[in-house]
Amino acid sequence: MARMAAGVTPFRGLSAFPITPADAAGRVDTGALAGLLERLAAAGVDSVGLLGSTGTYAYLTRAERRRAVEAAVEALGGRVPVIVGAGALRTDEAMSLAGDAEAAGADGLLLAPVSYTPLTDEEVFQHFAAVAGATGLPVCIYNNPSTTHFTFSDDLVVRLSALPRVAAVKNPAPAPVEAKAVVQALRARVPAGFSVGYSADWHSPDAVLAGADAWYSVLGGTLPRTCLALTRAAQAGDEAEMRRIDATLHPLWDLFRRHGSIRVVFAAANLLGLTDAQPPRPVLPLDEAGRAAVAQALAGLDG
Amino acid sequence: MARMAAGVTPFRGLSAFPITPADAAGRVDTGALAGLLERLAAAGVDSVGLLGSTGTYAYLTRAERRRAVEAAVEALGGRVPVIVGAGALRTDEAMSLAGDAEAAGADGLLLAPVSYTPLTDEEVFQHFAAVAGATGLPVCIYNNPSTTHFTFSDDLVVRLSALPRVAAVKNPAPAPVEAKAVVQALRARVPAGFSVGYSADWHSPDAVLAGADAWYSVLGGTLPRTCLALTRAAQAGDEAEMRRIDATLHPLWDLFRRHGSIRVVFAAANLLGLTDAQPPRPVLPLDEAGRAAVAQALAGLDG
Repeated sequence: MARMAAGVTPFRGLSAFPITPADAAGRVDTGALAGLLERLAAAGVDSVGLLGSTGTYAYLTRAERRRAVEAAVEALGGRVPVIVGAGALRTDEAMSLAGDAEAAGADGLLLAPVSYTPLTDEEVFQHFAAVAGATGLPVCIYNNPSTTHFTFSDDLVVRLSALPRVAAVKNPAPAPVEAKAVVQALRARVPAGFSVGYSADWHSPDAVLAGADAWYSVLGGTLPRTCLALTRAAQAGDEAEMRRIDATLHPLWDLFRRHGSIRVVFAAANLLGLTDAQPPRPVLPLDEAGRAAVAQALAGLDG
Repeated sequence: MARMAAGVTPFRGLSAFPITPADAAGRVDTGALAGLLERLAAAGVDSVGLLGSTGTYAYLTRAERRRAVEAAVEALGGRVPVIVGAGALRTDEAMSLAGDAEAAGADGLLLAPVSYTPLTDEEVFQHFAAVAGATGLPVCIYNNPSTTHFTFSDDLVVRLSALPRVAAVKNPAPAPVEAKAVVQALRARVPAGFSVGYSADWHSPDAVLAGADAWYSVLGGTLPRTCLALTRAAQAGDEAEMRRIDATLHPLWDLFRRHGSIRVVFAAANLLGLTDAQPPRPVLPLDEAGRAAVAQALAGLDG
């Protein structure tokens, strides 16, 4: 069990989102996953975001997701809190996944309003209320319109933040020029202690510099040392150091925007020798030119 | 087995898409489904679109989808061809679902590029090639950007139309003023016999009037007689009769656009006494005011 001390939130600092290595049939390679997690623990990330979008949760069965959580909790041995993605199209399925994660020893949940039929605000509210009401774990609202096709307004986040156990939000990072205003506007409306965090790696360090609590990082799952240094600089208000490190990552951010971050970090993990696993079909690995560009972007980075 | 004679396409005329009655846990009520299908067969629809978006395929397990297909094939007894939705996030799962539908006696497949990670054209092409290569059934490309979040260009449809077994496309219906140009532009680029059809009920009759081969109809699954009369008027080029019938449906089209068609047809099926089933959570039934509006819109319609 990696259960944290009461009152400690897993939703702060650098949350590193690893890929979930699996074979072509969707069977998770728990040994390779443990290797990735060891790398994250050794770097000292603040939390692991297991089975996020980068962790291909949407493409894995309930049984495989449970295997992944169990393997992660065992591999990390309480050194790093584990946030587990519990998103599913059906409300009952999301509740079951939340129960599985809690039983396996997760420290928090990340809940995306996965949709097929476009959902209304009321439907998403009731979905979250049902899942949060069925777990003892703190829940982070996963606002990722590019994959779930639902966009949380601040109004809805505020309404959800009043529910027991809804403890955090992971929003798309605003443009740097707006970051301070956006972070402050939301923070003024949510309860004290509610964590305001961001994803989209190329803008998230600026959000942390502007006072956000957490960066939910795709690249942090594969290059944890570099992303942790970037996070610490932003947290310390050392903008010059933050910009220096961020500049070394611009080629990767460009590739993220061009190919989608998931394809790029699978290629990076392959190139770094961390795993041979490929994304789940229909998602294709990068082609030769794409892999060469990733190799070039990785050259000289610390890991 | 409802298998059709060789060379006969199920992708023509009115394809009626029923809801799939299921309990709160996602168990399909095959008796209620058979009742809905009997109504469609009695009306004489040209095909049934089983497990489409309206049929909540995305919310049902593989086992329940198989049960639904088996029940439908048995209930229809070869009187009406059955097109079965085989969409899934994973390519291997879509291939399995296609195999299940074929084994159960379906006459055609409807394949949506369900996405979580946004997909590239090449990924969708390879996904379709894999599924079409694993089935003996004709496949209809299901272009429904509002649910799948992938948009097929005509270029991609044309590329796919060269694959064996890819026999049809179900596109979002164009605005009526553009219908003839849109239908003709695509038809000029696909092989002879490739079926060009449309969904979005409020614009599809105009597309049929403009020469489209098929209307994939949500409302046709619940009010088959009215939708069939509308289809026959459009096919016959009787625009006055088409407009007359269509005008009686404007209140329903307005509700479709306002609430999403799936919530409206569940309410309609409840109000007509066809089933007590509700949409799968998180999708919520219409509230009291919404149900009253549906009741009013149904008043005086033929069924």
